Amino acid sequence: MADAAPFQRLALIGIGLIGSSIARAARRGGLAGHIAATSRTQATRDKAMDLGIVDSVHETAAEAVADADLVIVCTHLGSYETIARSIAGHLKHGAIVSDVGSVKGQVFRTLGAALPDHVTLIPGHPVSGTENSGPEAGFAELFDNRWWILTPDQETDAEAVERLSAFVAGLGSRVEIMDARRHDLVLAITSHLPHLIAYNIVGTADDLETVTQGEVIKYSAGGFRDFTRIAASDPEFWRDVFLTNREAVLEMLGRFTEDLIALQRAIRWRQGDTLEGLFTRTRAVRQRIIDAGQETDAVNFGRNPADGRSSGDSD
Amino acid sequence: MADAAPFQRLALIGIGLIGSSIARAARRGGLAGHIAATSRTQATRDKAMDLGIVDSVHETAAEAVADADLVIVCTHLGSYETIARSIAGHLKHGAIVSDVGSVKGQVFRTLGAALPDHVTLIPGHPVSGTENSGPEAGFAELFDNRWWILTPDQETDAEAVERLSAFVAGLGSRVEIMDARRHDLVLAITSHLPHLIAYNIVGTADDLETVTQGEVIKYSAGGFRDFTRIAASDPEFWRDVFLTNREAVLEMLGRFTEDLIALQRAIRWRQGDTLEGLFTRTRAVRQRIIDAGQETDAVNFGRNPADGRSSGDSD
Repeated sequence: MADAAPFQRLALIGIGLIGSSIARAARRGGLAGHIAATSRTQATRDKAMDLGIVDSVHETAAEAVADADLVIVCTHLGSYETIARSIAGHLKHGAIVSDVGSVKGQVFRTLGAALPDHVTLIPGHPVSGTENSGPEAGFAELFDNRWWILTPDQETDAEAVERLSAFVAGLGSRVEIMDARRHDLVLAITSHLPHLIAYNIVGTADDLETVTQGEVIKYSAGGFRDFTRIAASDPEFWRDVFLTNREAVLEMLGRFTEDLIALQRAIRWRQGDTLEGLFTRTRAVRQRIIDAGQETDAVNFGRNPADGRSSGDSD
Repeated sequence: MADAAPFQRLALIGIGLIGSSIARAARRGGLAGHIAATSRTQATRDKAMDLGIVDSVHETAAEAVADADLVIVCTHLGSYETIARSIAGHLKHGAIVSDVGSVKGQVFRTLGAALPDHVTLIPGHPVSGTENSGPEAGFAELFDNRWWILTPDQETDAEAVERLSAFVAGLGSRVEIMDARRHDLVLAITSHLPHLIAYNIVGTADDLETVTQGEVIKYSAGGFRDFTRIAASDPEFWRDVFLTNREAVLEMLGRFTEDLIALQRAIRWRQGDTLEGLFTRTRAVRQRIIDAGQETDAVNFGRNPADGRSSGDSD
C-alpha cells in the first residue's frame, strides 16, 4: 500500500450521509490534520459542528477548500459544474480533488472542466450507504469492508492515485481502480436499476385504488416492505443518478423488462418449469454475496430473534 | 376474544419453516395437548423429532390426522388435492381443517372438494416468513405481531372460526377475517409481485454477459443485495403461488410494467421533476410501515452498528 501519511487539511463539500461519514472515518483513522466542511444551509453547518465531526465549517465552498490538500465533493451530481466554478480559483497547488458520486463517466467533464491544471482530479465512488440523509445519519463504519471505486484516466498522476487509495483504505474501504464507463455499466445493474425498480413498485402499490393504502401497509411483511427501504433514499440524489447515467440505466432496464415479460408469459401459459428453473437459479446468488463479505448472514435481515438464524432447505 | 381452550391434538401436514414455527409457537403458548406431524421425507420427519418440536411424526398424512381436532396443511399449494384425498377418510368428526397457503381463492375447491361434511374448512394465511426453508429454519416468534388472515365463507361455522382465531392469536398473530378474493388481490401486490420482481432482477443480473458475475457480487451493496433475500425463497413454493394466483398477479404485473415504462420514458426524455416527484412520494411509505409495527426502524436493515441508527433528511 502507498504512503499513508495523513493529509494536512481535508475539505468536504457537502456534509450529509457520505460527507459526514468520511469526516468520522477520517478522524477515526487519523487521516487528516484538519477537517473543513461546507454545506448549502446554515442548519446543516451548525449540525456538523454540534456533532463535533469537523474542525471548521464554512459558508462557501471557496472558503472550505482554501489550503486543503484533499477536497472531496459529497453533493448531488447536478451541482458539480457550479461547485467546480466556485472553487477553481481557490484550490491549493497540487491538491487532489475527488468526489463520491454514483455515476463516473461525466465527472471529468462536469467537475473537471473548470478546475485548474495544478490540481489532480480523481473521481471516486464508495459503494455503500443507507436510506438516510443528513450529517446525523453518518457513522464511521459506513465504509468498512465495502468497495470504493476510483476512476482516474490514463493521464492521472499515479502518485496522487496511490495517495488517495491509501486514504480510502484508511477509511476502511477496499479500493478498486476501474474505467469510468465500466463503472457506470456495472453500477447500473447493481445499484441504479434496483433503486428504480424499488421506487417503481412502491409507487405502483401507493397508487392502487382497488387495494387500500392501509392494506398495503398492513400486509407489507409478505415481501413489499423490503423494497421500501431503498425507495426511501434521497429523491434529489437519485433523480440526478438516473439523468446522468441515462444510457446504461436504459440498457439495463430494457433487459429487465424483456425478462419480466418472459416471466409474465410463463405465468399466463402456466409454464411452471420455467418459473421453478429461474427461482432455483437465483437462490444461489445471495449465498455468493454473503460469502464475498458484502452481506451479513442474518436471516430475514435480522428482523427475527437469533434462534431463527439457522439455515436449511429440506422438505 | 373467543374460547382459548387448547386443542387436544394438532396435526401438521408439512413441517418446514411455517409448520415447524407453528409447532414451536403452539408449544410456547400451550395451545395443543399433542402435536403430530408428517412430512414427505424420512429425513425431515427425523429432523422434526430431533429438534423436539413435535410429539409424534407419521409416515402418512392419514396417520397424522387421526384423532386430531385441528389439522393445518403446511405444504405447497400444488399438493392440496392429493392431501385432501388422502386424509378425507381419516378425519375426526368436528375437526377444523386449515392451511397456511399464500393464495386463498382456490382452497375451498382444491382442499375442500374431497373433505367430508363433518369437518370445517377455514383457509388461512400467516403473512410472515423468512427466505429459509425446512424444520430447522422455524422459530416460535415468527408470527408475533404479524397478521394471520382467515378466509371462511358465508356458510362456515362461526364457532369454529372463533376457535381457530383464538388459536392463531395464541401463536402471537393479529387475526384478520377477509374475503378470499380480496386476500388474493391484496397479497398479489404486497407479496407475490415483490417476489416476482426480485426473482426477475436477480435473474437479469445473473445473465449479464457485459458485466461479470464477480462484479455483480462485489458491488451488490449498492442496492442489489436487498433483492437477493426474497429471491432466495423456496422455488417450488413460489412456482405454485404464481400458477395459483395467476389472474391477480398478471393484473398487478400489468400495472407495475405500465408504471415502469412511464419511468423509462421520463429518464429518456430527461424529465427530472417526474422522477423526483415519485421518489419523494415513495419515501413516506416506509415510515408508515414502521409506524404500523410491521417493520423495525433499524437503518439499512440493521447491517450497520447502532450509531448509524439515527435518522434524518437534512443536507
